[in-house]
Amino acid sequence: MGKVKVLAFSVSLDGFGAGPGQDLDNPLGIRGGEVHAWSVTTAAFRKLHGSEGGREGVDSAFIARSFENVGAWVMGRNMFGPIRGPWPDHSWEGWWGEEPPFHVPVFVLTHYARPTLAMSGGTTFYFVTDGARVALERAKEAARGKDVRIGGGVATVREYLAADAIDEVHLAFAPVMLGTGEPLFAGIDLPKLGLTVAQATAGEEAFHVVLRR
Amino acid sequence: MGKVKVLAFSVSLDGFGAGPGQDLDNPLGIRGGEVHAWSVTTAAFRKLHGSEGGREGVDSAFIARSFENVGAWVMGRNMFGPIRGPWPDHSWEGWWGEEPPFHVPVFVLTHYARPTLAMSGGTTFYFVTDGARVALERAKEAARGKDVRIGGGVATVREYLAADAIDEVHLAFAPVMLGTGEPLFAGIDLPKLGLTVAQATAGEEAFHVVLRR
Repeated sequence: MGKVKVLAFSVSLDGFGAGPGQDLDNPLGIRGGEVHAWSVTTAAFRKLHGSEGGREGVDSAFIARSFENVGAWVMGRNMFGPIRGPWPDHSWEGWWGEEPPFHVPVFVLTHYARPTLAMSGGTTFYFVTDGARVALERAKEAARGKDVRIGGGVATVREYLAADAIDEVHLAFAPVMLGTGEPLFAGIDLPKLGLTVAQATAGEEAFHVVLRR
Repeated sequence: MGKVKVLAFSVSLDGFGAGPGQDLDNPLGIRGGEVHAWSVTTAAFRKLHGSEGGREGVDSAFIARSFENVGAWVMGRNMFGPIRGPWPDHSWEGWWGEEPPFHVPVFVLTHYARPTLAMSGGTTFYFVTDGARVALERAKEAARGKDVRIGGGVATVREYLAADAIDEVHLAFAPVMLGTGEPLFAGIDLPKLGLTVAQATAGEEAFHVVLRR
């Protein structure tokens, strides 16, 4: 039986998963990019996105590991592509390009229905309007015994944490203080949810903490 | 001119400087001891308290450094000794023993006056009932050009941060999630105060982050 995991989730030292003022130009919010900088510079990230180069090492290994044994994803609509309101056009394929790096079924939480979207390389986006519980059920079924990975944004992760649906969380603390933004932990008591620190490892540009039940 | 510094301040990964339920038996709150465990096991901590042994390494070096060039301390009353209400007896000398590890003037924030208390080894406790601003002014004067170190607890540090009085903060993130407790960052915007990450270093049992103006 697979697990439900939040992996390679970037957070600032003061607990923000995204900066303030998120909009189409700043989908991660102001200074949110600094929180994620550690990941996009890794060799594993670049390889996943069809590029070469990048840094090898601990950070890169955590990125590579975050794609292993994943049978399906659930993500918030803004991770598919940050468009507000109804879909303007069903031909728009999100911002992951023709061959997204997922290569498995991806269930996108949204209030606006649209047809299933099959991309190159095995990624199929399903748009789920029945809420987070249904999306996770469908993802578990689609994962066929492998893990379900919960993607961003912060609100999506918080929803599944609050629902006590997460078996493992890998947080990457970036050496950045945001001061304000979208908090990951506020009102979420991870130990109470049975999630305790199983591993704490310093990477080159982030501090990695794995919590498990 | 000396700086005003918060040094070797322990915090959980979810931003708590102490656990919930702080009382005389649990001055650091429930599980608060886990947040501070990295420090008390170091060789530098043991040496400061007149013991031998302990771990050498990065954590220990940060503890040793936190006592260098300190000309005076300011601390909350609970760091002197967690007694509620008026002092029961002025002969009680806090919980740092006959020769406290400070060896400089220490200004204790309290609502209850009591006479100055001179201890062995150069530590003198002054009990300040005129508030945090006055205590810091007196500490700066007493430090004679060296640094003033702001001790715990969390409320004391938050008060000086909110007053924009801090030049440097060294936080030691322990690989622990508390879930609940006394938050260090809530409502405190460190970047807005001009404090940004100058150094991030993995120790053996804590992840050290130094913020400076």
